[in-house]
Amino acid sequence: MFKDTITVLGNSAALPVRDRKLSAHLLETDRHSLLFDCGEGTQFQLFNLKKKIQRISKIFITHLHGDHFFGLPGLLSTMYMLGRQKPIDIYGPEGIEDYLTQLNKICTAEFKFEINFHIIKVESKELIMENESYSIYAFPLIHRKETYGYLYEQKDMKPNIKKSFVRENEIPVEWFARIKNGEDYIDEDGKVFLNNEITELRRAPKSYAFCTDTIFMPQLIDYVKDVTILYHEATFLSINKKEATAKKHSTATDAANIAKEANVGTLIIGHFSARYSNLSLFEDEAKEIFKNTIIAEEGLLIEL
Amino acid sequence: MFKDTITVLGNSAALPVRDRKLSAHLLETDRHSLLFDCGEGTQFQLFNLKKKIQRISKIFITHLHGDHFFGLPGLLSTMYMLGRQKPIDIYGPEGIEDYLTQLNKICTAEFKFEINFHIIKVESKELIMENESYSIYAFPLIHRKETYGYLYEQKDMKPNIKKSFVRENEIPVEWFARIKNGEDYIDEDGKVFLNNEITELRRAPKSYAFCTDTIFMPQLIDYVKDVTILYHEATFLSINKKEATAKKHSTATDAANIAKEANVGTLIIGHFSARYSNLSLFEDEAKEIFKNTIIAEEGLLIEL
Repeated sequence: MFKDTITVLGNSAALPVRDRKLSAHLLETDRHSLLFDCGEGTQFQLFNLKKKIQRISKIFITHLHGDHFFGLPGLLSTMYMLGRQKPIDIYGPEGIEDYLTQLNKICTAEFKFEINFHIIKVESKELIMENESYSIYAFPLIHRKETYGYLYEQKDMKPNIKKSFVRENEIPVEWFARIKNGEDYIDEDGKVFLNNEITELRRAPKSYAFCTDTIFMPQLIDYVKDVTILYHEATFLSINKKEATAKKHSTATDAANIAKEANVGTLIIGHFSARYSNLSLFEDEAKEIFKNTIIAEEGLLIEL
Repeated sequence: MFKDTITVLGNSAALPVRDRKLSAHLLETDRHSLLFDCGEGTQFQLFNLKKKIQRISKIFITHLHGDHFFGLPGLLSTMYMLGRQKPIDIYGPEGIEDYLTQLNKICTAEFKFEINFHIIKVESKELIMENESYSIYAFPLIHRKETYGYLYEQKDMKPNIKKSFVRENEIPVEWFARIKNGEDYIDEDGKVFLNNEITELRRAPKSYAFCTDTIFMPQLIDYVKDVTILYHEATFLSINKKEATAKKHSTATDAANIAKEANVGTLIIGHFSARYSNLSLFEDEAKEIFKNTIIAEEGLLIEL
């Protein structure tokens, strides 16, 4: 069975120094890919990691600071030059549409396939899209600019019918839809086959939240309650807490506290300030509070 | 004596595939650096090659296709975050100022040091700036968009006075300015010291032209006559001449013909289409016509 994966494309805050790339995560489902943020050079990282860029169907931008969206024009332009015709959905705060539309004019349509803009404007957690497989929610973060976090949530999937069981017991195909919906099967002789004999449960739905950039924000605990994987920014170490607060960023401790209180499965921390060369300090600090913490190493691929 | 150098930051056309970076050259003088074009990721290349980004005082953009300017916002933003206060000059076609000004608003001033825009609009070769050390000319190229080439030309430098000679012959310092201007020195006894005994010539002024993107353009021969180093795009090999013409690009042969007719010192070719993996084919093709051809390998540093 295909499992959704998340790939870290960059983990650096603001400056692309120390050879660390800028903010972007790729979520790959069985059908397509979702991109969260798109700092400068995201297209290079996608190529380096051999990701199929035309698979990307939706892009979610957290906020309009350069390190989170300056890679958009280049990525869209490359998609177009490589023959893209299918549309793309872009979600983000106000300003993103005007920016790309004006740029497209200046460049004489460098990306002239269909772009559907979805301007986010929410004051608490709200559903912003869904299909039969998953839902996406947006919620406000607190930063120096209007910023949103995103939550990807798989839908509860109907159980699978055990092929060997239905073959052995000659259960007719006409019944399958009813069985998938939870009914027991009763054959012509009145013999009852219980639903849980015929079916096997699929994995419980998983979820993934992308939260960057933000100050420590207790309201977030509610928004990301019980998620499978929480990505939370950790721009600073606790020794620089004052600066974190002034710049409306979080520390590794802040991120770990959110993860712990929200009872998440795994915490990924990233968006590290360029001043730090040793990322294990972040890991150590967060693990003191929340053991299941992972550093957003570039190229890290994790199954949901 | 300091010699100006040129560093190739990227050589790829349009798409950043095969790990080739996008269009940008850095010219370093003894006082500051000039950047020609700024494709996405130029700031990463500057960091990788350990170039000092705050040394860049002027940026020249050839045209508004993404692979030649999508790196500007990120570079300016990084300059600002690293504390830049001194102004920068940006030269380029109409549209560049509106684009960066609007972007600066959206991002709430990601680059709020002074940017002096110089919109280029010339129909033949024209002086666009000069100081005591060099002049810069712009001239039109022929491409699918309004495009300009740039010519950097060192000024004729006054000769150096030979220190040992003036010491031995007790030539008074009050005469130095006159000697530098070409006068002979006559001492109190009427003895004549010829100017060319007292001085030594400095290197002849050098020049560098940056020509991308353009179709084969005979008018260019005049514009870049006798330059020391000519950078000329060679997006295609001759076998794809038809496509080159249709897309208003040049072949390696085209570039070499310009170099030969213009009697340049060295030809650098770059801006290679992503379809070609073997760049030596470009070198072979150009050298058939113009022997002193160099491939714009990334990181190539060449003295002017």
